[in-house]
Amino acid sequence: MALPLRQPTRNDNGIALAVPILKQRFGDRCDTGLAMRRQHGHTTTWLPVEAPDAVVFVEKAEEVVDIVDICRTHGVPIIPFGVGTSLEGHVNAPAGGISIDFSRMNRILDVFEEDLACVVEPGVTRKQLNEYLRDRGLFFPIDPGADATIGGMAATRASGTNAVRYGTMRDNVISLEAVLASGELIRTASRAKKSSAGYDITRLLIGSEGTLGLITKITLKLSGIPEAISAAVCPFPTVEAACNATIMTIQSGIPVARIELLDELQIRAVNAYSKLTLPEQPTLFLEFHGSQAGVEEQSEAVAAIAEEFGGGPFEFSTRAEDRSKLWQARHDAYWASLGLRPGAAGISTDVCVPISRLSECVEETRADLEELNLIAPIVGHVGDGNFHTLLLVDNDNADERARAATYMERLAERAVRMDGTCTGEHGVGQGKMKYLRRELGGTVDVMRAIKTTLDPHDILNPGKIF
Amino acid sequence: MALPLRQPTRNDNGIALAVPILKQRFGDRCDTGLAMRRQHGHTTTWLPVEAPDAVVFVEKAEEVVDIVDICRTHGVPIIPFGVGTSLEGHVNAPAGGISIDFSRMNRILDVFEEDLACVVEPGVTRKQLNEYLRDRGLFFPIDPGADATIGGMAATRASGTNAVRYGTMRDNVISLEAVLASGELIRTASRAKKSSAGYDITRLLIGSEGTLGLITKITLKLSGIPEAISAAVCPFPTVEAACNATIMTIQSGIPVARIELLDELQIRAVNAYSKLTLPEQPTLFLEFHGSQAGVEEQSEAVAAIAEEFGGGPFEFSTRAEDRSKLWQARHDAYWASLGLRPGAAGISTDVCVPISRLSECVEETRADLEELNLIAPIVGHVGDGNFHTLLLVDNDNADERARAATYMERLAERAVRMDGTCTGEHGVGQGKMKYLRRELGGTVDVMRAIKTTLDPHDILNPGKIF
Repeated sequence: MALPLRQPTRNDNGIALAVPILKQRFGDRCDTGLAMRRQHGHTTTWLPVEAPDAVVFVEKAEEVVDIVDICRTHGVPIIPFGVGTSLEGHVNAPAGGISIDFSRMNRILDVFEEDLACVVEPGVTRKQLNEYLRDRGLFFPIDPGADATIGGMAATRASGTNAVRYGTMRDNVISLEAVLASGELIRTASRAKKSSAGYDITRLLIGSEGTLGLITKITLKLSGIPEAISAAVCPFPTVEAACNATIMTIQSGIPVARIELLDELQIRAVNAYSKLTLPEQPTLFLEFHGSQAGVEEQSEAVAAIAEEFGGGPFEFSTRAEDRSKLWQARHDAYWASLGLRPGAAGISTDVCVPISRLSECVEETRADLEELNLIAPIVGHVGDGNFHTLLLVDNDNADERARAATYMERLAERAVRMDGTCTGEHGVGQGKMKYLRRELGGTVDVMRAIKTTLDPHDILNPGKIF
Repeated sequence: MALPLRQPTRNDNGIALAVPILKQRFGDRCDTGLAMRRQHGHTTTWLPVEAPDAVVFVEKAEEVVDIVDICRTHGVPIIPFGVGTSLEGHVNAPAGGISIDFSRMNRILDVFEEDLACVVEPGVTRKQLNEYLRDRGLFFPIDPGADATIGGMAATRASGTNAVRYGTMRDNVISLEAVLASGELIRTASRAKKSSAGYDITRLLIGSEGTLGLITKITLKLSGIPEAISAAVCPFPTVEAACNATIMTIQSGIPVARIELLDELQIRAVNAYSKLTLPEQPTLFLEFHGSQAGVEEQSEAVAAIAEEFGGGPFEFSTRAEDRSKLWQARHDAYWASLGLRPGAAGISTDVCVPISRLSECVEETRADLEELNLIAPIVGHVGDGNFHTLLLVDNDNADERARAATYMERLAERAVRMDGTCTGEHGVGQGKMKYLRRELGGTVDVMRAIKTTLDPHDILNPGKIF
């Protein structure tokens, strides 16, 4: 339907003109030092670094408008940057350009306690926000593990461990302010909890990865800190048994706040890294939110289900320190995994399938890892049917690299075949572009048509998604 | 940014060419009788009927593609029709054209019990779906009152009484199949519960009111029928007290399934129509879902809050027949209201504001009704900050019509001033077009740009939203 987007090509003349203008406008806040530029092309990813030509540290939306106007005039790419925790090369600059660093736009502008809502700048991180909110009895539930910025999380439609109960960024953003490629500053929606006022431009920008607009303000939905929180750990004889217990938990409508699978290899890594002594078996980490009576009711129900599938012992704790230790270990699973094979590169996959296919998908994937002789511990937000394998690859071994590529192809193909997605929460970026059409067919043309219309010169994060 | 959409103009030549082609292709399923045409322009609305030139009853997606191809070739508008329960003139044909009646595409194609999901055709109604699901212990929670089609509900981003707990159509659609203006049939997403695979085209189509695509299949999220359901009724001394009790209930995180306000005039109407004997006071109707212990815990908590605001007696029932009677009365509030002034036209307003502003908004609105000497009972999904006033207007009285217009203008302005929306759940259609820019500014240009790109000849439901 739409014309294909051109592959981004480097416009050296435009860049050579724009950078001095930005230098003059932003002074020291426009940095062209190589280290800074490389750091802004670097993410927690297996993709090679592609550094921007300059990094501008913005402090307000009007400055973002100025940068967009300058870059549009000279045909220069703009790449938004939060804290660089994305996993699919989202902040790389394949055609050069200007990285806009939002970390100084980190003010919490308003908290509407009565409305369970707040307004923040994009550089606010989730931990910063939750520390700020704690005394008010409120919290922002989305937790991708890393201390990402809210802007980055909105841009990639992030989720994480407690999406099973609280949803993803899609469900927890009320409204956005953003600068378009035209330089126009828009606000996508009112603060009303629901609205039927035309197209859902809020949701269009969420997950657009900086390719349609640069987010400068976010109105978030908050949740009340539950009266009681408890955690549990339960080992299982097999991954299949753990998956089946998860499926039954979800089907039973038990409102678990977190239900995470770690396979035996991941448990070994976590034990070593976080100094735990968990049995080296496939294990579920769980969290329950509610009233005192509610969390007990929930955990008893899950314990009974676990037992039915041969799991146990089901260890339950209401102590905050046990809980913190458990979730810190879960959040450190990435670093723990790297410890299994020092020097190896880590590649995190991210498929998500209907939960009825989860067990089958995990089993086929494990068999494939074995067949291809690859090492990859598994962690999963299994309540949502989403799991990650962390491939540990020796980048100096061409044969192993080829096997890893085969594995990733097959994994994406398997997820699509099971009516799932190649990316549950990490986004497309550079890494998943090749799978998008296989998954969504002509819908990709609709996306491209929208991109071409809203950003005809392809200046907003070119070379991502398409 | 984008060129403004032209006002739809009637293309008599195109229509004269297209209708015989459709007649030949669809035979008796293409109806040009005046009664049928008028019925397809008629909705529960105050807007004048604008009948299409023909009505085609489709049975499968491929037929929708054929109609789109024929109509695009001849520049003829297409207006999708479910069962005609929309309130803002969505099914009117201001430039003539073809009404596609989806009521025969009413098959439930798949139920994935393990995934709490199903796939339906757009003509399935919500009651039909829930009757089908009942024996499986599942239900589809969105309830706009009327027995609307799922396709229409998706197209208008409908919600209703239990959105406070279960969300709106935005939150309960996993994936859509739709025919675009190009004739292309797309599927917007996989069946995965969450995804970061590019732009959220599912959410873009939800609420697009048939202007971007014609929905031919919907994958829905389902919920388990709760173990226990109970209902309650509680009168309050004032509307303000009832609103404040609602605000505190929501802030306390009590997961009420429904919390509906009826003012004293609405109660009088409901008593007369549904043969109830409720005290003529502002009243909350509530519903609780959960375990036996859970619903008791919830209702006790709300009863205590109600008492704090001078409400009571709090009458609680777990009997299904009491509950049905209560919600039937609530759903009949529209018809009951019309009974207050036989012969008057009913105009339903639909503002939604942040809940912290709800009480103030309702009070200012009531004062305005009094000042303008208008009659309008109030019902509201107050847990979401959304309320309706049903203006009862004598259409033969020009002065009263003018006062009603003033009232609606001021109400929309008031909602926007309080950072809310002119339409919480009814959509824009023809009736709310004039308020959209006031509410969303330049975001309307983004919507228009997308419309122009995806439907360059403006054949899909022209004259709506913009």
